[in-house]
Amino acid sequence: MKISTVQFNPILFDKEFNINKMLNLIENVKSDIIVFPELSTTGYFFLHKEEMHRYSDSFDSETIKIFQRISTDRNQIIVFGFLEEAKEHFYNSAAILFPQAKYSQVYRKTHLFYKEKFVFTPGDTGFININYPDWDLNIGTLICYDWRFPEAARTLALEGADIVVVPSNLVTKIWHRSMPARALDNHIYLAVANRIGTESRRDEELYFNGMSVIYDFNGEVLDLATPTEETIVTAEFDPREARDKSINAMNDIFTDRVPKYYFLG
Amino acid sequence: MKISTVQFNPILFDKEFNINKMLNLIENVKSDIIVFPELSTTGYFFLHKEEMHRYSDSFDSETIKIFQRISTDRNQIIVFGFLEEAKEHFYNSAAILFPQAKYSQVYRKTHLFYKEKFVFTPGDTGFININYPDWDLNIGTLICYDWRFPEAARTLALEGADIVVVPSNLVTKIWHRSMPARALDNHIYLAVANRIGTESRRDEELYFNGMSVIYDFNGEVLDLATPTEETIVTAEFDPREARDKSINAMNDIFTDRVPKYYFLG
Repeated sequence: MKISTVQFNPILFDKEFNINKMLNLIENVKSDIIVFPELSTTGYFFLHKEEMHRYSDSFDSETIKIFQRISTDRNQIIVFGFLEEAKEHFYNSAAILFPQAKYSQVYRKTHLFYKEKFVFTPGDTGFININYPDWDLNIGTLICYDWRFPEAARTLALEGADIVVVPSNLVTKIWHRSMPARALDNHIYLAVANRIGTESRRDEELYFNGMSVIYDFNGEVLDLATPTEETIVTAEFDPREARDKSINAMNDIFTDRVPKYYFLG
Repeated sequence: MKISTVQFNPILFDKEFNINKMLNLIENVKSDIIVFPELSTTGYFFLHKEEMHRYSDSFDSETIKIFQRISTDRNQIIVFGFLEEAKEHFYNSAAILFPQAKYSQVYRKTHLFYKEKFVFTPGDTGFININYPDWDLNIGTLICYDWRFPEAARTLALEGADIVVVPSNLVTKIWHRSMPARALDNHIYLAVANRIGTESRRDEELYFNGMSVIYDFNGEVLDLATPTEETIVTAEFDPREARDKSINAMNDIFTDRVPKYYFLG
């Protein structure tokens, strides 16, 4: 099975450009799974709720339907970040779209970063691992700052994820130190789709640092992008190889866990 | 405040040599905290319970008392791994000894590695963070394979640990990928005292890979040993600097946690 993460530069407030860009990029990707960055369709740096409605989508909007049709037609799983509006709340969400649409779901970002707290509502979906039986695949999704909390990837792995995909708009670089540990600690594949470029609002400029990456279950880099180029990162993987959590004849990193002594309240 | 981890080669079944070695090493270390490897007093590779009693110590044994007296006399915290016997069980334990003996405690290794499962009982103490008020210090202890479980360091950090010390006899090298993440993820200092040398039993040789290390709260290396030399690794640190978990004006990696969505059973 092949997965690609697409690194590009979404333009703030230019949804038409971004969606067309994404559709063009998909044309060139033959992988089974395609992952785009966080808030791919809209850009990132929203500061006022008043400016958000015209760029938002509900999960049954025409935007989502376009990508759902492509997922089905091309037989590819497509994951991308979008600005979701639901019941007068804005969520920093990811659409996880399967060729069989009945498996498609939305994940709403649990841990909000920085000024996202001004405009977004914290996610209420919890962490979602989806079993896609047609491909014998278990795929979990996190969004950007969710990486900072080892409990997030752990939860998905314990729910059975073989691979975790991470649509991101990362502005700090410290994530490179922990992201491979998320893969190793859980013996799962992990794919980060980070964006590139900058966004300025008022006096503040955000620099998104690219380096989209796919790790194997030991946290080894399978493919890695530069910090600044539009590019596609691709790796082959076998989801079944993530399932055996044993590391020698006596130890299994999941059955060795001792939750009664874990304080995580 | 200064911490040192002591990297040396304990000799299996030669408790007198090991203890004298440790006492000599302490003479040369002026740091406030001294950490020795796992099972420092006895060596590591026990295979039969029958061979263990003559090398074991209870936590009120003369061996522990010797180190407790030194801790008090020299005003140093001393942590070392030992073979504990209690109520007909053997534990892979660490003595955590404070100048004020009433704070001293034993930690019994929670996660047993490989053939330890033949001879040791899994620890029943849980993870222990000790507040030492005289020095305004919170110190947690893990032993070796406990590193493999992000919940272990997380538990200690949530209990308030400023620094986690890790007496170890590491035989795999993959720990270098996750150990710095334990420090970064929890914004705590972390000090690994790993041993060097080899031990052979029957047809099996274990190679202990040294590289004892002290990380700051970003997972940056403060001091690092070679894989093979007897040596002392030392760093200065300020325990108070581990306590502010904020990373910008809007985010705090502890208060941002959302336990209701963490599945860790």
